[in-house]
Amino acid sequence: SAASTPIRATLFPGDGIGPEIADSVKQIFQAADVPIEWEEHYVGTEIDPRTQSFLTWESLESVRKNKVGLKGPMATPIGKGHRSLNLTLRKELNLYANVRPCYSLPGYKTRYDNVNLITIRENTEGEYSGLEHQVVRGVVESLKIITRQASLRVAEYAFHYAKAHGRERVSAIHKANIMQKTDGLFLKCCREVAEKYPEITYEEVVIDNCCMMLVKNPALFDVLVMPNLYGDIISDLCAGLIGGLGLTPSCNIGEGGIALAEAVHGSAPDIAGKNLANPTALLLSGVTMLRHLDLHDKAEQIQKAILNTIAEGKYRTADLGGSSKTTEFTKAIIDHL
Amino acid sequence: SAASTPIRATLFPGDGIGPEIADSVKQIFQAADVPIEWEEHYVGTEIDPRTQSFLTWESLESVRKNKVGLKGPMATPIGKGHRSLNLTLRKELNLYANVRPCYSLPGYKTRYDNVNLITIRENTEGEYSGLEHQVVRGVVESLKIITRQASLRVAEYAFHYAKAHGRERVSAIHKANIMQKTDGLFLKCCREVAEKYPEITYEEVVIDNCCMMLVKNPALFDVLVMPNLYGDIISDLCAGLIGGLGLTPSCNIGEGGIALAEAVHGSAPDIAGKNLANPTALLLSGVTMLRHLDLHDKAEQIQKAILNTIAEGKYRTADLGGSSKTTEFTKAIIDHL
Ligand SMILES: CC(C)[C@H](C(=O)O)[C@@H](O)C(=O)O
Ligand SMILES: CC(C)[C@H](C(=O)O)[C@@H](O)C(=O)O
Repeated sequence: SAASTPIRATLFPGDGIGPEIADSVKQIFQAADVPIEWEEHYVGTEIDPRTQSFLTWESLESVRKNKVGLKGPMATPIGKGHRSLNLTLRKELNLYANVRPCYSLPGYKTRYDNVNLITIRENTEGEYSGLEHQVVRGVVESLKIITRQASLRVAEYAFHYAKAHGRERVSAIHKANIMQKTDGLFLKCCREVAEKYPEITYEEVVIDNCCMMLVKNPALFDVLVMPNLYGDIISDLCAGLIGGLGLTPSCNIGEGGIALAEAVHGSAPDIAGKNLANPTALLLSGVTMLRHLDLHDKAEQIQKAILNTIAEGKYRTADLGGSSKTTEFTKAIIDHL
Repeated sequence: SAASTPIRATLFPGDGIGPEIADSVKQIFQAADVPIEWEEHYVGTEIDPRTQSFLTWESLESVRKNKVGLKGPMATPIGKGHRSLNLTLRKELNLYANVRPCYSLPGYKTRYDNVNLITIRENTEGEYSGLEHQVVRGVVESLKIITRQASLRVAEYAFHYAKAHGRERVSAIHKANIMQKTDGLFLKCCREVAEKYPEITYEEVVIDNCCMMLVKNPALFDVLVMPNLYGDIISDLCAGLIGGLGLTPSCNIGEGGIALAEAVHGSAPDIAGKNLANPTALLLSGVTMLRHLDLHDKAEQIQKAILNTIAEGKYRTADLGGSSKTTEFTKAIIDHL
């Protein structure tokens, strides 16, 4: 049984507040008897030639082997000659879909109380190709690449996710009225996949209109799937609706069944080491990881404890208007388990 | 004086609800004794080979000569072999900056009551280059082009606008952490111009973060300047904050001092001809045109009458939750002049 053979999972605590919020996750998972054994890996201090970044090859091997991991914030060190840590992870592990559930937290008031949507972002190509040229002095160009393979793959994932989670509608977000070939191909792939899921309503929404609708009435949306840059923009917009990146979980899905959950907020060096950080995004990301592992009871138990603690309002970290330390908030969640 | 020699301005009533809302503008401007003589041009029914679109060459000549115009919604007819009407106007008239003032309307409640910002969008290049290729089967690319010339031009306009309108800050919106060369060039140009305006605070905000901040607290922003696609997205997002495209004015600035104000909402064919349309966006766009012509008293008088009518709430069109006809709303504004 799960209790006797623990699941090995990679943990990247990350930089800045990373180690503190990772501690919070470890304590809460332990208190809930989650059958996970963490393999911890830190960002290195020298460039590993095999990854061309400060991420070590061993840390990537750990995710490849375990197929599941949790990642805190990683600040890419400034300087030349190496790749961004986040982009290295996406590329090396082929993390093709970034999934962000985004829902209003009961008791935590924002301007919106009806958000309950999932953004699914293509995570490997599009405007993130890295291909840029100076054509002549004063004229530069970037290449946006859309492939049938990556578009089908993320569309498949989105419909699969929608069906598995009892969602009713998938909206493909695009700007095919301007980028007819690239976004047109993305839509074509979504339509192909949509045909295999007649029980799911499929629609296409132009990105500018989508952003307007999201701020007017986010309840209009259910599952959104989109190319890389639109996903980057819209997932942060949606996070804003419910209070920010400190509250939104995220999970990256890779080829071969890899799932790397991550807190997408920054490493907040200004408050690092002060016991002030809010671990919610990393915790909720951990919960998405548990669901990916089909540990639904544990996921449910921990998620409820987090949400109830926040809803109750007695223990909240400073970013949510409270005065609790990270460790007090963590203890409160454990008490709610 | 202005009263004795009227200013000639081009009017494109446009399609769908266009003629009705254009009538509203004409009546209100006349009632306010605005010294403007309209030169009306309609979208043609055949492709004009000189514009490659349904816009006639004569209508473009009219704007070039008058240097000022007002445009209703234009639905691009479906089919091949011609260019979108909006894009044709931008290209042929070199409309390099799209300016959208976006402010909460007193008395018209949305989730936000503190919006007061200006989006300034580069309107000619970027992702709108129209350059797309299929590289091999299943792999397509779009070119995003950023030039020093167009970036400097829109940055100059943004700072000039900020100073002329007593605004304190200009934020350049970008994704230069990913598109280092293209968005990097855009930022470099903004920085160069910023140096000439030491009295204006200059900052740079990554687009995903900008969208999150906008939905959390739009009061953080003042004037935003950005490349074409980000402008398309953010200007619609901002319109959503205050109620939608039916309430937001827009003005396009072209080379040689051209100003073409426009309602950016759709032509709403479903309610066309039914006296139900809301003329507010076209009216407020007309007001930005008056300001461009330095007719500030008339602009102020008309803008107040529009806002007071909406604030009072007795006469509102259906889209704003009222039951007034277009003509009743128009008459109410005239009564408020
Ligand atoms: C840090 C940056 C490169 C990254 C991105 O643009 O993908 C971030 O915004 C994200 O969403 O994870
Ligand atoms: C209709 C479309 C081509 C246009 C654009 O993308 O520029 C519209 O969204 C706008 O903002 O005027």
